[in-house]
Amino acid sequence: MTKGINAKDVAKLAGVSQSSVSRVFFEGASVSEKTRKKVLAAAEELGYVPNEFARSLITNKTKLIGLVMKGVHNPFYPQVLKEFTAHFKELGYSILFVHTNHDEIKQEDIERLLHYNVAGVIITDATLSLKVIEKFKNNKIPVVLFNRKVEGQNFFSVSTNSLIASRQIAEYLLKKGCQDMAYISGGRDTSTSMERERGFSEILLKHNVPFQVYHSDYSYDGGYKTAKEIVLNGDIPSAIFVANDIMALGVLDALREQGISVPSDTKIIGFDNIDMAAWPTYNLTTWEQPISEMVIETVNYIISEIEEYTDRIGNIEINGELIERKTT
Amino acid sequence: MTKGINAKDVAKLAGVSQSSVSRVFFEGASVSEKTRKKVLAAAEELGYVPNEFARSLITNKTKLIGLVMKGVHNPFYPQVLKEFTAHFKELGYSILFVHTNHDEIKQEDIERLLHYNVAGVIITDATLSLKVIEKFKNNKIPVVLFNRKVEGQNFFSVSTNSLIASRQIAEYLLKKGCQDMAYISGGRDTSTSMERERGFSEILLKHNVPFQVYHSDYSYDGGYKTAKEIVLNGDIPSAIFVANDIMALGVLDALREQGISVPSDTKIIGFDNIDMAAWPTYNLTTWEQPISEMVIETVNYIISEIEEYTDRIGNIEINGELIERKTT
Repeated sequence: MTKGINAKDVAKLAGVSQSSVSRVFFEGASVSEKTRKKVLAAAEELGYVPNEFARSLITNKTKLIGLVMKGVHNPFYPQVLKEFTAHFKELGYSILFVHTNHDEIKQEDIERLLHYNVAGVIITDATLSLKVIEKFKNNKIPVVLFNRKVEGQNFFSVSTNSLIASRQIAEYLLKKGCQDMAYISGGRDTSTSMERERGFSEILLKHNVPFQVYHSDYSYDGGYKTAKEIVLNGDIPSAIFVANDIMALGVLDALREQGISVPSDTKIIGFDNIDMAAWPTYNLTTWEQPISEMVIETVNYIISEIEEYTDRIGNIEINGELIERKTT
Repeated sequence: MTKGINAKDVAKLAGVSQSSVSRVFFEGASVSEKTRKKVLAAAEELGYVPNEFARSLITNKTKLIGLVMKGVHNPFYPQVLKEFTAHFKELGYSILFVHTNHDEIKQEDIERLLHYNVAGVIITDATLSLKVIEKFKNNKIPVVLFNRKVEGQNFFSVSTNSLIASRQIAEYLLKKGCQDMAYISGGRDTSTSMERERGFSEILLKHNVPFQVYHSDYSYDGGYKTAKEIVLNGDIPSAIFVANDIMALGVLDALREQGISVPSDTKIIGFDNIDMAAWPTYNLTTWEQPISEMVIETVNYIISEIEEYTDRIGNIEINGELIERKTT
């Protein structure tokens, strides 16, 4: 049902019934080859395209995936958006994009996704309440938390294995001879940041290496301010693990301004491997998140749950790898 | 029509007819206050939400805006996406996001937007053919080219006034005493880049100031490579106007690597004023695009054309302003 031209016009031009037109455009409906050709020719001539809304009323399915995103300022997420869009496009799905300013997505955003009867939902860098997840479950809509996880909850999530990553980062810095360290977190309530802190501190405690934790907010400005604080306090550690790259760039800029040399005065390591980490000005050592694999796992889960809803839960964690550059 | 619960279930629980349920959820339909309350209570209890698809079959309108975007790697565009999403959300519209890898958007992307009977379309940093625009016009769907314009065509576009901007940039650099200059373009076919070249060269020609044009591609890597080329050729001008910020950051990094001092050896000026331009490492002088005003003009046009389709065409150009930092 386009605004100008509808199935009726096509039926008239093709000399067939309106229900024949519908059958041509709805998957699985039987129609003779002759009728199909007539209808397609008429549709082409008139510029008619069948409408997903009408189709969805018949098939009770849409080809829309709701993608909820918070951190568009972190270049990691536009990259994620691009990859999801490309994968779902190949499968005939479109992306209904929802931006949220909140760490926990709100009822109103959910209502919108339900209104559109989305086939699946992906939530990046935000969480959702049990009440909200129930709404999706009631409607048999599969949901994936992407790059977040909630322990012991009723969710399906896909993320990098942050525990393995942060343990390896600690081991790597120990091998480099660092004897006191700091961790800059992305937020007290963020699962990724907490896990990175856990793995990192676990190894340092085991080796009796002192370390300090600073709380920041996963932003460039946050990293910049925190690094200035560290310098002002005069307790510059021999290495700083920063919970994501965009914060690490802020840390590097603040240290440069304060005349602190990296890696000779202190070593810096980030997390994500965003494009900018490789820029010659930063040359940041970091932990690469396997975005493509994470996206594929997410797409596979959603598609399989669309085909047959089983409400499968669990955390898929994929290993990333250390990318060694010049800041360590 | 959610997957689990439908209007029939709500009608049953509320003890009203199914058509009463429909009337409650479709705007403009009359229904008694008593019935409305009963239906809403039953809907709440069952977790029922009315479906936009069903609504659209009755109202012949959707609340979807198609947003087509190419350059998600340029931080300018995620910012644009965020602002559009926020504005349209307030008006009750959702964003159907389409990512394209092509400068000219393809038939398949268009078909998808038409399938969903979108209420309006915004195309950022890409163009579309006359054939494609005709499809939208036939369906009375308003289209805006955002940050692009096509001279003498059948479009409505919203952009920064690049001609005024680039003339002022040239005047500014002349005042700074620059006596030979370069322009790094974003692409030979890109309207924004061509206009910036036009205004810049117009003023330099008037003052008999020699200048060179280098063609690049609106990316960090493009700017980086082009600057290396300039240095290798040994003809470093006293100022370089770079067609966007993300390229200018690549230029600055390449010059730094080559030991060229900015602004003493050469002055650099960008365009957009992305967040990174203000980072202390770059401190890039640039021309700020008035994103918020551009977004508001675009939203206003689309909403007015949804209310009454007039197929109004024209170019809305908004003035930006020079942001002076340390690279000049």
